[in-house]
Amino acid sequence: MLWMLYRWPCGALPGCGVLSAPEPTVQSLIFRLRVMAPHWVSRWPWWLFRASPGWRQTACTLRAWVEPRRWPGSFQGAGVASPLARRGCSSTSSRLPAVVLTQERCAVQRLPFSTVSEEDLAAFECIIPGRVTTDPEELEAHNVDWLRTHRGCSKVLLRPRTSQEVSHILRHCYKRNLAVNPQGGNTGMVGGSVPVFDEIILSTALMNQVVSFNSVSGILVCQAGCVLEELSRYVEEQDFIMPLDLGAKGSCHIGGNVATNAGGLRFLRYGSLHGTVLGLEVVLANGTILNCLTSLRKDNTGYDLKQLFIGSEGTLGIITAVSILCPPKPKSVNVAFLGCPGFAEVLQTFSTSKGMLGEILSAFEFMDAECMQLVGRYLHLACPVQESPFYVLIETSGSDAGHDADKLGGFLEHLLGSGLVTDGTLATDQKKIKMLWALRERITEALSLDGCVYKYDLSLPVERLYDLVTTLRAHLGPCAKHVVGYGHLGDGNLHLNVTAEAFSTSLLAALEPHVYKWTVDQQGSVSAEHGVGFKKRDVLGFSKPPEALQLMCQLKTLLDPRGILNPYKTLPSRA
Amino acid sequence: MLWMLYRWPCGALPGCGVLSAPEPTVQSLIFRLRVMAPHWVSRWPWWLFRASPGWRQTACTLRAWVEPRRWPGSFQGAGVASPLARRGCSSTSSRLPAVVLTQERCAVQRLPFSTVSEEDLAAFECIIPGRVTTDPEELEAHNVDWLRTHRGCSKVLLRPRTSQEVSHILRHCYKRNLAVNPQGGNTGMVGGSVPVFDEIILSTALMNQVVSFNSVSGILVCQAGCVLEELSRYVEEQDFIMPLDLGAKGSCHIGGNVATNAGGLRFLRYGSLHGTVLGLEVVLANGTILNCLTSLRKDNTGYDLKQLFIGSEGTLGIITAVSILCPPKPKSVNVAFLGCPGFAEVLQTFSTSKGMLGEILSAFEFMDAECMQLVGRYLHLACPVQESPFYVLIETSGSDAGHDADKLGGFLEHLLGSGLVTDGTLATDQKKIKMLWALRERITEALSLDGCVYKYDLSLPVERLYDLVTTLRAHLGPCAKHVVGYGHLGDGNLHLNVTAEAFSTSLLAALEPHVYKWTVDQQGSVSAEHGVGFKKRDVLGFSKPPEALQLMCQLKTLLDPRGILNPYKTLPSRA
Repeated sequence: MLWMLYRWPCGALPGCGVLSAPEPTVQSLIFRLRVMAPHWVSRWPWWLFRASPGWRQTACTLRAWVEPRRWPGSFQGAGVASPLARRGCSSTSSRLPAVVLTQERCAVQRLPFSTVSEEDLAAFECIIPGRVTTDPEELEAHNVDWLRTHRGCSKVLLRPRTSQEVSHILRHCYKRNLAVNPQGGNTGMVGGSVPVFDEIILSTALMNQVVSFNSVSGILVCQAGCVLEELSRYVEEQDFIMPLDLGAKGSCHIGGNVATNAGGLRFLRYGSLHGTVLGLEVVLANGTILNCLTSLRKDNTGYDLKQLFIGSEGTLGIITAVSILCPPKPKSVNVAFLGCPGFAEVLQTFSTSKGMLGEILSAFEFMDAECMQLVGRYLHLACPVQESPFYVLIETSGSDAGHDADKLGGFLEHLLGSGLVTDGTLATDQKKIKMLWALRERITEALSLDGCVYKYDLSLPVERLYDLVTTLRAHLGPCAKHVVGYGHLGDGNLHLNVTAEAFSTSLLAALEPHVYKWTVDQQGSVSAEHGVGFKKRDVLGFSKPPEALQLMCQLKTLLDPRGILNPYKTLPSRA
Repeated sequence: MLWMLYRWPCGALPGCGVLSAPEPTVQSLIFRLRVMAPHWVSRWPWWLFRASPGWRQTACTLRAWVEPRRWPGSFQGAGVASPLARRGCSSTSSRLPAVVLTQERCAVQRLPFSTVSEEDLAAFECIIPGRVTTDPEELEAHNVDWLRTHRGCSKVLLRPRTSQEVSHILRHCYKRNLAVNPQGGNTGMVGGSVPVFDEIILSTALMNQVVSFNSVSGILVCQAGCVLEELSRYVEEQDFIMPLDLGAKGSCHIGGNVATNAGGLRFLRYGSLHGTVLGLEVVLANGTILNCLTSLRKDNTGYDLKQLFIGSEGTLGIITAVSILCPPKPKSVNVAFLGCPGFAEVLQTFSTSKGMLGEILSAFEFMDAECMQLVGRYLHLACPVQESPFYVLIETSGSDAGHDADKLGGFLEHLLGSGLVTDGTLATDQKKIKMLWALRERITEALSLDGCVYKYDLSLPVERLYDLVTTLRAHLGPCAKHVVGYGHLGDGNLHLNVTAEAFSTSLLAALEPHVYKWTVDQQGSVSAEHGVGFKKRDVLGFSKPPEALQLMCQLKTLLDPRGILNPYKTLPSRA
């Protein structure tokens, strides 16, 4: 198998500063090398190849877990579990401090639902014998979200295996006016997957069967509780991949992915779940099974009802099965990590990558210099390229390694020649690709070690993406320790993070609603991929007009007239 | 610019019959040629290159129009306008025989809407001065669909320019209980775009402004009445393409495309409009403007309301503006036209194309031998390859012509070597690509010249796609002149057509509900891409369970409580 890891120091070229375009020198060198070794240098200059010295050190410092700490308020605090660690229920531990009940931390009133009685438990036991849990210790992991910011006090966990069982459960709950919290892998970022009060937790964990896979069309049909990573393995054995990939893939359920309209790392290439999900089976609040589980690429027979449930966070129905289109597995994957002299160059690099890499471009991520400093300081991950104001991570996935290397070679040569990047490194084998991805994926972890973190997940027009970070640095001054920006540039998705020594209401007041207002002024979205859940339900109005909020409430009333499905989530509390 | 048009006669190889795998001979030839001319023959054997003799004749016989005839019943009759002709309102002409009023041809009762009064006309004139049409001659083109199967008797045509005007009009109609038929380019296939009775026609023709185009992200925002072809031209000037392409592109409006969830030729590559449409502005039945016109790739703030309107055929709201993601323009396009010895080989060719062409595969169409015979007989288009039981058209679109040719070369070599195809031709320049596409696109026209045509647009699991054609041939026997199958194999979309000398109720009875039942038995869909409209509303129940139909009706009632928007369409008449 082919692999390369090399680095080219732009500054090492005669007469070639970090910010200047080294075109003539590069071209003449390439020309000379072409003459000397035509096969090797048709695209790639020899002098670019050099093993990165930082990787040995980096590998030693890779840690999968850091001690979490508690944090107040509605923002995410320091010391969360590593995003590289296995997320979900298993992340709780007796070593960790208790999480305050959401109902105590936040101004929220319990709605007038019934409470679970002995008769209810007997009814559930009848429907799913042996799979009704009331043990407080076992329930603990299901009452707290993986970020350890939200905690409910549910007394019952139900683990159905079939849609019929879910239907019987909901029919009972609907009749009895019992609130239900659907739960997949419990890996959500906005407190949507755990109860706020004593809602019954309905876990999809045992609904984990693959129904069918068509190896011609690549269409997978499976139950909602299948773990994403297991599905990935399953389809990869048949030369396909899942159209989505997430840090939480080891725990998250496909049903939860669909319910939260998860974005993730393959979004740029394979698009939204609204396009790749072909069918859903959903159990409605009253127990009706809505079978829209077609496994067809095209189906224009009436309203596309499944779309209603994608991203509705379990508030309109419980997804019990998913039909999804899997793309063929790419035969070649490359990752380039580059240093850029400014954000304008980051944008130009993105534009150029779309033109020159075309159909093989599969990710375009960026991070600023402060992110890299934090990753270096706290996680001892060495920057594999020359220090730069910005870094981009570009992934390509294609069906021909030679063609991909050729395209990427031409592209990188152009970037270097035009001064858009000042330094770069490339990895083609799996281990080194993961190392480069770690620089981007472990920023969250590094930030959490820097103090108290105020986190925002924003969608913005790509050309204004970084302006908010710059504006905010000036706006906050010394109140903040760090104001950093990184994220999925290719999707226009900025992860804006502000750190401080400790929680401060004045800093929070300086941030909110300023950040949301700024975002709205740019026609952005206050939640790009994390959803609304419990945490963001009262900022929804920043991104959606009153007419849209009203229609959302009407849809909720139509589909769940008693409001028993995942209450206190997604819709504004005032609605 | 590179271009090639060549043909390889498999039978011309020694010891190589049409159905046998010529592997050893081909390989030895390639090997010998590689030694002789290593650059040229690294992938493509020289002897494959030969100009196709049929093209001169083909070019002379390309016709854009055939005289239409009338046909009875609910199926499409013979002699429709060529799909290559400019569709829409302009297709009507004084030379053509009148189309029977839908209300006379079909058992349908007018719902108790008000009729347009002088006061209503005055109110409309106030809202859109000079753009209220009551001239019967001008209205004629808007009352009849382009297939000339449906005809309404509307007395008023309104042509608003802005969403506000649409809002004012609907507010008035809602108050007055006046039914409204939204109309784009009037290019629909199922009678959804014309009135059934005297509904007011609200045309989007003057809402044809581009609002913005972001040349970094490729996001286009425009009014609903922009013609697809004009948008294509606009974005192509900036090195992007529209994510959809249709035969009707010269007339169809982007708003209509979205309202009908149009599929088309780029579906295989760029997917459904549910994935590529980023935002919509919609005017609801009561005049409320619902602004979900975000131009962001990611936006997880609440329910994705725009999805409700994609494919709802104007029955839930009138789309007034669209935000859509445009892919970068491919730098290289190739089309291969191949003969396959059987449908099993067609399927294997499809599987192989996904693996070997990967990210550059952009269309995979098929047609059977009878289609080719009809195209030859009626349109004098010569088959560019050896006679075969099946033909496939494969299109690639990529960012590097050399790489694409290399991939396609390797793929075709493999097909030929393994006996999956017996003959083939390849085109890389625009003119010849269009000629190959014409063979596939003009089948409808050829069928219409063969007599009375019974047309079905079905979505089926790809491995069962052709079984229906075979089954039906046996089932119908000599009652049918021809039973043919063709379509978008890559999308699992079969266009099944049956021709007969004249309309026959017994043939219709032998076809329906047999075709629909067979489709449902294979978990297929009775409408893949054409939608429901007026024509298919009563077969919807074949593909959707009662629970889904009920929810559709509830959504209609929620969004359009008086049912004024495009009545008699999309939902079953019994609902």
